[in-house]
Formats: sequence, structure tokens, C-alpha cells
Amino acid sequence: MSDTAGKPITCKAAVCWAAGEPLKVEEVEVAPPAAHEVRIHILYTGICHTDEYTRSGKDPEGVFPVILGHEGGGIVESVGEGVTNVAVGDHVIPLYTAECRECKFCKSGKTNLCGAVRATQGQGLMPNKTSRFKCKGQDIFHFMGTSTFSQYTVVADVSVVAVEPKAPLEKVCLLGCGITTAWGAVVKQPGIKDSTVAVFGCGAIGLGVIATSSLVGASRIIAVDTNPGKEAWAKKFGAHEFVNPAKLPEGTRIQDYLVQITDGGLDYTFDCTGNVHVMRQALEACHKGWGVSTIIGVAAAGQEISTRPFQLVTGRVWRGSAFGGVKGRTEIPGLVNDYLEGKVKIDEYVTHHRKLDDINEGFHDMHSGDCIRCVVDMQ
Amino acid sequence: MSDTAGKPITCKAAVCWAAGEPLKVEEVEVAPPAAHEVRIHILYTGICHTDEYTRSGKDPEGVFPVILGHEGGGIVESVGEGVTNVAVGDHVIPLYTAECRECKFCKSGKTNLCGAVRATQGQGLMPNKTSRFKCKGQDIFHFMGTSTFSQYTVVADVSVVAVEPKAPLEKVCLLGCGITTAWGAVVKQPGIKDSTVAVFGCGAIGLGVIATSSLVGASRIIAVDTNPGKEAWAKKFGAHEFVNPAKLPEGTRIQDYLVQITDGGLDYTFDCTGNVHVMRQALEACHKGWGVSTIIGVAAAGQEISTRPFQLVTGRVWRGSAFGGVKGRTEIPGLVNDYLEGKVKIDEYVTHHRKLDDINEGFHDMHSGDCIRCVVDMQ
Repeated sequence: MSDTAGKPITCKAAVCWAAGEPLKVEEVEVAPPAAHEVRIHILYTGICHTDEYTRSGKDPEGVFPVILGHEGGGIVESVGEGVTNVAVGDHVIPLYTAECRECKFCKSGKTNLCGAVRATQGQGLMPNKTSRFKCKGQDIFHFMGTSTFSQYTVVADVSVVAVEPKAPLEKVCLLGCGITTAWGAVVKQPGIKDSTVAVFGCGAIGLGVIATSSLVGASRIIAVDTNPGKEAWAKKFGAHEFVNPAKLPEGTRIQDYLVQITDGGLDYTFDCTGNVHVMRQALEACHKGWGVSTIIGVAAAGQEISTRPFQLVTGRVWRGSAFGGVKGRTEIPGLVNDYLEGKVKIDEYVTHHRKLDDINEGFHDMHSGDCIRCVVDMQ
Repeated sequence: MSDTAGKPITCKAAVCWAAGEPLKVEEVEVAPPAAHEVRIHILYTGICHTDEYTRSGKDPEGVFPVILGHEGGGIVESVGEGVTNVAVGDHVIPLYTAECRECKFCKSGKTNLCGAVRATQGQGLMPNKTSRFKCKGQDIFHFMGTSTFSQYTVVADVSVVAVEPKAPLEKVCLLGCGITTAWGAVVKQPGIKDSTVAVFGCGAIGLGVIATSSLVGASRIIAVDTNPGKEAWAKKFGAHEFVNPAKLPEGTRIQDYLVQITDGGLDYTFDCTGNVHVMRQALEACHKGWGVSTIIGVAAAGQEISTRPFQLVTGRVWRGSAFGGVKGRTEIPGLVNDYLEGKVKIDEYVTHHRKLDDINEGFHDMHSGDCIRCVVDMQ
């Protein structure tokens, strides 16, 4: 038992006080974990577009003030009553997609979308409907059940997984979102081996889809991005070809172009942009009769996807995946091992490093075309 | 060899001279089949909404004058050179979805959408780009490669299947479209046994989906239709419940209502309406994490389906099926046997009978709420 167990911890955290404001590094008080909760000393965290989406105020379900962050790695500082899946000192990754193993969803064997803590997580609260964060006398909301932009955070025990301590947390923290999402979206679909794949958007998720498609043996991987700087990145991760939709002859739609160069379309496509127009292109670039298009990107609130139903009636399938369909507690330990064995890339995604005090710079990095992932050192 | 073989046949056919006009029963001349073609004496034909769609002029790909009809049954009168799959005297069903067994699609093992005769079929012509129909000195276009509204028609050999001659053609003609479409859309999806199903639209296709879901052992089948007269029909075919969206409390959306009464949504839904708004409802009535919605209905030209991508990202799948995914030459003979053994309903769909001379009355029947299928006696 650490000597902080059972007591509030005062530490630094990046607080977003209101929609659209930059984060402010503040002293916060982190309450001890209640029953079935875990307090984690966060050492590293990635910054993801979902953090920026909520920070910007575009997320209609965003609540403020809030501590963002959902791609973290840390060490368990203390556990509440009844916690059995992790112990003090464990190296852990917080999970914004919980895995309780008891709800209808977990038991179905068909989905990773655990229902255990969903309602309160969406409200920015712990399962007992309160917050563990205080700053300047005020309760601060949690975010995605993880709030990794704090040196200490509290999560539900169903929302955390212990991983091999040999794995560097400054790297495997990225398994908390992007890389796992991309990996799962590919490996959980049978049939990608020996098939053709197009990946729309070459950010961290897109590169992860490219890398995983290459890993499982896709026969032809076409990367699509309007940023010409992404060509080298895409090829480094395993793409065979790169297509820039902005460079096509005027009037040529990207989906028509792809259908043409692939003799009828792709077997699998992935949207990794969050842009609803691109989602349509990705679907319509699929081969008639069997093409499957997977939406991974998160669209802005209120936006809708559209297509002619004929696209589906003639055999294309439109699906999506959240956190890659991965059950975090069950599958992330294996993914960490795959990383340690050199099967899954992580290091290659990290282009930028920031200190907690400079976390806003990390958000700026993300908007620049040459950043794949920025990892924040929380010390 | 029949004594008409190799010669043109003069017979009656219902010709649609122009978009929006009623059909006109005319004397037509039907040329002998060319190589790899089959001339069929059509005895019975159903009337389907797709015939009406093209007749009405709403189909932008409709060509006129044309002989419509694609749900027929008849007897082979003569065959062209090289035809080996059917012989004179065979009882046959023409197939608007060909099965050549040689093209990329047929060989893929993933789809029934054979590419062999698609281009010319879409143009209203036989594979050698000519028509076999003449009326008043003018070429008349074929329709869907079948043109069953003629006492004699010519089809490609890949577009026809022989069936057990004991089966009454006035019944099994309906396997040429609607009933097979519905049957395939259900049986080709694993998992419907012991699952919940909602069927939107209780026309012939919807009733077929209900009947087949019942046959494979769905645990709960909810029929949805705004026509209260369809409740008795739906239950006769195996629905456990009937919901009329027009009778819900004001402001209640049908998808929300279904999600509520099924504790989270349906495992499988089917759109059998062709209405793009209903297609959306059917998708959104699916259970998060695993619900699969299948579009069977054919929407009007230019119409689009829409939804929030979140619906897919949270685990719903949007797909479609054409002719139920059924490979006609391979699978229809078995379906005919299933009918003869009482496993597949056909008789129950036939509510109206018409003679060829009254075929326009059959179109009117179809618009009345109490018609499931009208079968036309071509003699």
C-alpha cells in the first residue's frame, strides 16, 4: 500500500475550463478511489483528435470544466475496495471502452461496447455519479472515463488493464486509443489477407490500418490523402501506392478513380478521417458484390453519411468500429507483447514530445501536417 | 425439336410503348434464339413493383418501347446453338440475375451478381446487342433479360433454369423474383435462428422475409407496416407482433419505439419498402453492437439513404441484397423442391389472377392494399 492511499493527492493537471479555451495547467486534488475504482499515476499520455473535438466545443456532449485525455499509461497508486483485476504498482493503460465481462454487451461475444459505466462516463462522472477531481474548490468533470491529462486520475476497475512492465509506458500509452483502434479494425475482419485495401486518411489511425493490413497480408494497399507529405509516411507503414485526390484530373471522383485502377473496386476500405464525404467515397470505392467499408473516424455532431441504396443492394457493406472492436482488458496485454516482439509498430508513430506544461503546444502539433502522434511527459 | 424451331413466332405480348403509358396487348414477332439463347413459351408471370417502376417512367434507365415482366414460368420451345443447360420441353424460370459460372463475380464465391450479360441486359438488348422482338415493324426492347409479359420470349442461356416439371408453373413463376429474393436475404445470413427480427413493409417481399425468418427459427418477428390490413397477413406468415408506425403516440419515432420494446433494438432488420426514410428507420432500430440491417427494397432513382455515422461506429451494419444473394441456376431447383415438400410457401402469396388481356388490371391490383401477388395467365 502506498502512503498516499486513502488520501487525496494534490498534483498537476491540464484543465479545460470552458469550451474553446486552451488547457490550463492547474493544481488539482484527486480523491482516493471509491469501491471498484483505481487511482493511477499517469506518466505519459498521447493527444488525440477526440480530445481536441471536445476542447473546441464542437462536441455537443462536452461538459466543462473537464480534464481531457484518453491515451495514457501509468502505474497504479492505490485501489478501492473490491478491486481484483489490478494491484498497486501495476503498469496500466486506462480504457475508455470498459470491459466488465458481465453486461449484455460483454456477454454477447459480438461487440466490445461494454455497457457497465457508459451512462456516467458520458456525463463526465464516476459510476457513483460524482467526480474525483477538484480544482479551486470546484468539481472538475472526468472525460471518457480516463482523464489522462492529470498526473493522477481515477478510473473504474472495469476501465483499466495491467500490461507487461517491461514495455515503455511512453510508447504503449498509445495503445489506449489510436493504434489499437486501427489494429482491431483490421484484424477483426476476416478476409483481408490477400485482399485489396484502400485507406482514406493517413493520420495515426490510417497508418495503423495500413500497417496492420500489411501485417495480415493484404495483397495491395492504397493510401489516400490530400496531404502529399503523407506519401512517405504511408509507404513507410506498408502502403504499396499513394493517391492524392486533390491531384486527380478535374472532375474525376476519387471513388471512380479507385474503382478504375482496381478493376472494379477495393475488397476493403477504411475511413480514417471523420469526414462524412470521405466516408461516402470509401464506401463507393468498394467492389460491387463484396466490398466492405469500415468507418473508424469520428464525424462532427449532426453530420450524416449518405449514399444511394443501390450501393448496398449491389453487395457493398457499410460498417464501423469503435476502439477497433477490441476488448481492452482481454486483448491489450497481447498487443503489448506483440509490440515487444516487434510485430506491432508503436515507436514509429511518435513524432513529437511535449511536457505537461506545454500541452497546448501538443494540440498545435496535432494540427500541423507533419505530426502523427505527440506524447506528453506528465512529470 | 418443335416445328416452330428456327422460325419467328407470332404471339401476343403486352407492350409498353412509352413511359407512363398503360401496357397494350399486341401481336409481336419473336425471332428464334441465337447461339447460347433460349426461346421460352411463357405460361404464367407475376407482376412486380419493378415492372411498374419502369412502366411509370420513374426509372431513368428505362427504354421504350419495351416488353416488361421478370417473374415468369414457361416451357422451352427451342434453343440456340451451344445451349446445354436446358432442353426443349424443360419447365423453366427465366432469371434476371444471370449465373454464368465463369465471370469474376460468379467465381468469387462471394456474390450472385453475375457480370456475363449485365451491360446488354441494362440496355434492353440480347448479348449480341440486338432485340428478338418486333411489333408493327419496330424493334421492341427486352427488360431485365426476361420480358415475361410475352407468350414467347428469348433469354440468354445463363439466364434460365430448369425446374421439376411436377411443380405448377402458375405458382413457381413467383420464384423468379419476390419470394426467392426474400428467402435468400434471410437464409444467406447466418445467425437469424434464435434472434429478433423486424420486417419493414409487408408486401410479398416482406411476407417472404417473415416466412423465412420463421422457417429458420427467429425468436421474435415484428412486422411493421402503415397498412393495418397487413397485420393479419403478417401473422399468417409467421410474425409474432405487428406495429403500425402511423398509430404510435405523436412524436414517437418507429425506430425508438422498436428499440424500447426490444430492450435495445433488433438483431436483424429488413427494409422491404424501397422507401429511403424507412431504410434509415430499419437501420436505427438495430441493436447497438451487432444489429444488421438489410436493404431489399429498390428505391427510386436519385434517392439517397442517410444516417449518422455513429450508428455504424457503434456496431450496426448496413447491407443490402439483390435477388436475395441467390444464384438462380444453382439454387432455384432446390427451392422448387422445398416448395413441393411444403417447406417454402408460394400459394399463399397469390391473391389475384388475371388474363394477359387484362394485365393492366393486374397493375391496378398491385396498388391496392389487399394484393400480395397477381399472377397473369398468359394464354
